[in-house]
Amino acid sequence: MAGNICISVFSLCGRLSRAQIVASGLCHTDLYHLFEGMHKDGFPAVLGHEGAGIVESVGPGVIEFQPGDKVIPLFISQCGECRFCKSPKTNQCVNALDVGVMSPLESRFTCKGKKVLQFAGTSTFSEYTVVNQMAVAKIDPTAPLDKVCLLGCGICTGYGAAVNTAKVEPGSTCAVFGMGAVGLAAVMGCKAAGAKRIIAVDINPDKFEKAKEFGATDFVNPKDHSKPVSQVLSEMTDGGVDFSLECVGNVGVMRSALESCVRGWGVSVLVGWTDLDDFAARPIQLIAGRTWKGSLFGGFKSKDSVPLMVKKYLDKKILVDEFITHNMALDQVNDAIELMKQGKCIRTVLSISPQ
Amino acid sequence: MAGNICISVFSLCGRLSRAQIVASGLCHTDLYHLFEGMHKDGFPAVLGHEGAGIVESVGPGVIEFQPGDKVIPLFISQCGECRFCKSPKTNQCVNALDVGVMSPLESRFTCKGKKVLQFAGTSTFSEYTVVNQMAVAKIDPTAPLDKVCLLGCGICTGYGAAVNTAKVEPGSTCAVFGMGAVGLAAVMGCKAAGAKRIIAVDINPDKFEKAKEFGATDFVNPKDHSKPVSQVLSEMTDGGVDFSLECVGNVGVMRSALESCVRGWGVSVLVGWTDLDDFAARPIQLIAGRTWKGSLFGGFKSKDSVPLMVKKYLDKKILVDEFITHNMALDQVNDAIELMKQGKCIRTVLSISPQ
Repeated sequence: MAGNICISVFSLCGRLSRAQIVASGLCHTDLYHLFEGMHKDGFPAVLGHEGAGIVESVGPGVIEFQPGDKVIPLFISQCGECRFCKSPKTNQCVNALDVGVMSPLESRFTCKGKKVLQFAGTSTFSEYTVVNQMAVAKIDPTAPLDKVCLLGCGICTGYGAAVNTAKVEPGSTCAVFGMGAVGLAAVMGCKAAGAKRIIAVDINPDKFEKAKEFGATDFVNPKDHSKPVSQVLSEMTDGGVDFSLECVGNVGVMRSALESCVRGWGVSVLVGWTDLDDFAARPIQLIAGRTWKGSLFGGFKSKDSVPLMVKKYLDKKILVDEFITHNMALDQVNDAIELMKQGKCIRTVLSISPQ
Repeated sequence: MAGNICISVFSLCGRLSRAQIVASGLCHTDLYHLFEGMHKDGFPAVLGHEGAGIVESVGPGVIEFQPGDKVIPLFISQCGECRFCKSPKTNQCVNALDVGVMSPLESRFTCKGKKVLQFAGTSTFSEYTVVNQMAVAKIDPTAPLDKVCLLGCGICTGYGAAVNTAKVEPGSTCAVFGMGAVGLAAVMGCKAAGAKRIIAVDINPDKFEKAKEFGATDFVNPKDHSKPVSQVLSEMTDGGVDFSLECVGNVGVMRSALESCVRGWGVSVLVGWTDLDDFAARPIQLIAGRTWKGSLFGGFKSKDSVPLMVKKYLDKKILVDEFITHNMALDQVNDAIELMKQGKCIRTVLSISPQ
């Protein structure tokens, strides 16, 4: 993948565009695909789904873009036509979880004459990729691609989970579990929504300084306590937090996040994702008035929202640069994966091709 | 209990009233207490929590009631003072799940000189019971107590779960699992909220005729299908229902109810209650945009709402009589329990003392 063994081939029919990818973040979801067996799409595949680039050429059906446009490929589509796109309640385009948008088998990648599959409809760890018009956002031409690429997944996922899914309220108390990029973005979302107290929870205390930068006001390392973290939070907050966000992808943490919510109106949101286990709790947790929700890509309708998030960044209303702890070249992707596995980075941005 | 071995004793201090109970429904929650070990309050106890009666005498602190008032004792209090009562989001009075309101140990019941515990702050299987002012609703003096007693638990629980907790929308598609009294009340709530399609799910097809009377439009017996009921409902509804309500109290059914919801905006509500097991599902079920909620007493603020529900009944806006399949005397309570265990009744109303 990083050794020029994959070639992006153009076969631009229908509503497809070919984009030159300039930069891409590395996200845990790439890891899941590679190592943890969550995605069953198969191998070999070109990974990467948090990229930004420039349209290089367009197919005959493409009317929204032209060569030279700056774009962010979207792993969750917005066709604008389906009942989900037409509903204000959701961003789950009918094509988003199905295989309608650049499914692995529709990949335009080959290697030595054999098909290489596409990942998440995007495959941004490649100098060029072919994407469907309904899964590309055209962004402000002044946006720095090596920064805003992160708006293609992690930042929108966490920020939106707080703002759109939890619907965090002014003056509320929040807890965010997991201070990776998604968790930090959730903290930023809680702050933007006006939360007065934001409790950062992580078993790695090295993350807390960064969390403070994003707006966290309190810090809890479950390893510092002999009692369950939900009890610790409950005691800190007179019965539990108003909103909790699980940004780890661990079913035990999901349970703790729910149990950390105040009864009556506490809302807990699954942001991290695992498909390896069930999440579970006692029925009384919900009977007592709590709500368990979840969202994909922070509930943002992707094509509509990503350009607005880019604009927010350019207007200095959200942080993006602060997520980037490392910059590397594409052929260092394995080093970047190692850093991520060891929890030593927030986000590494890979330089894919020169702008 | 039914053999005059318990005596209601008055010791009317603070905000306590003594009420003569005229009639009481028998509810599954009474069974749980007796046989299924869910409530750990202890024995011996006077059961019953779905009653209606007449105030016989009041303590010095009681200003809201006077002897002769018709009342419904409330197993979930509304003190009006706590942060939960002051929030429009919840009915979970701070005293509701704690032991603040007529806890078992505050019981005024004795038998042969020994204390007999109070159940759910009410204990309506007794000619007289002592209740706290914050857990009694004064109702319309024309209300027939042998009917409106059912508004003390089951009907409000199901109806409110649809109207208040799920917030069923006009034109929506709903599924209600379990056609006991609570489930039928949930069907009635869905209909009142304007649902256009209400699917009744039960493994006992004898319940479907009654379900139709309450507003169900479709009927599914999971035993008639080899595939999971969630798949059956999904195929019937082009991807799942908008709202599902679990009115059984079985964690497997809770999972089915969630999985029967459409992705993107489906809302599933736990109405039935068990404390014996965890409920569980795959994270993708929520990540894909579903919401899992629950409520106690249908989310109704009890003192405010029960009189209004009585009024709705008197105005013929909700069904109550139709839930009553059997009328018995208090000393037939064991027969009534047997009927309920065999699923042969919807509600049995016990005549407790002459009006």
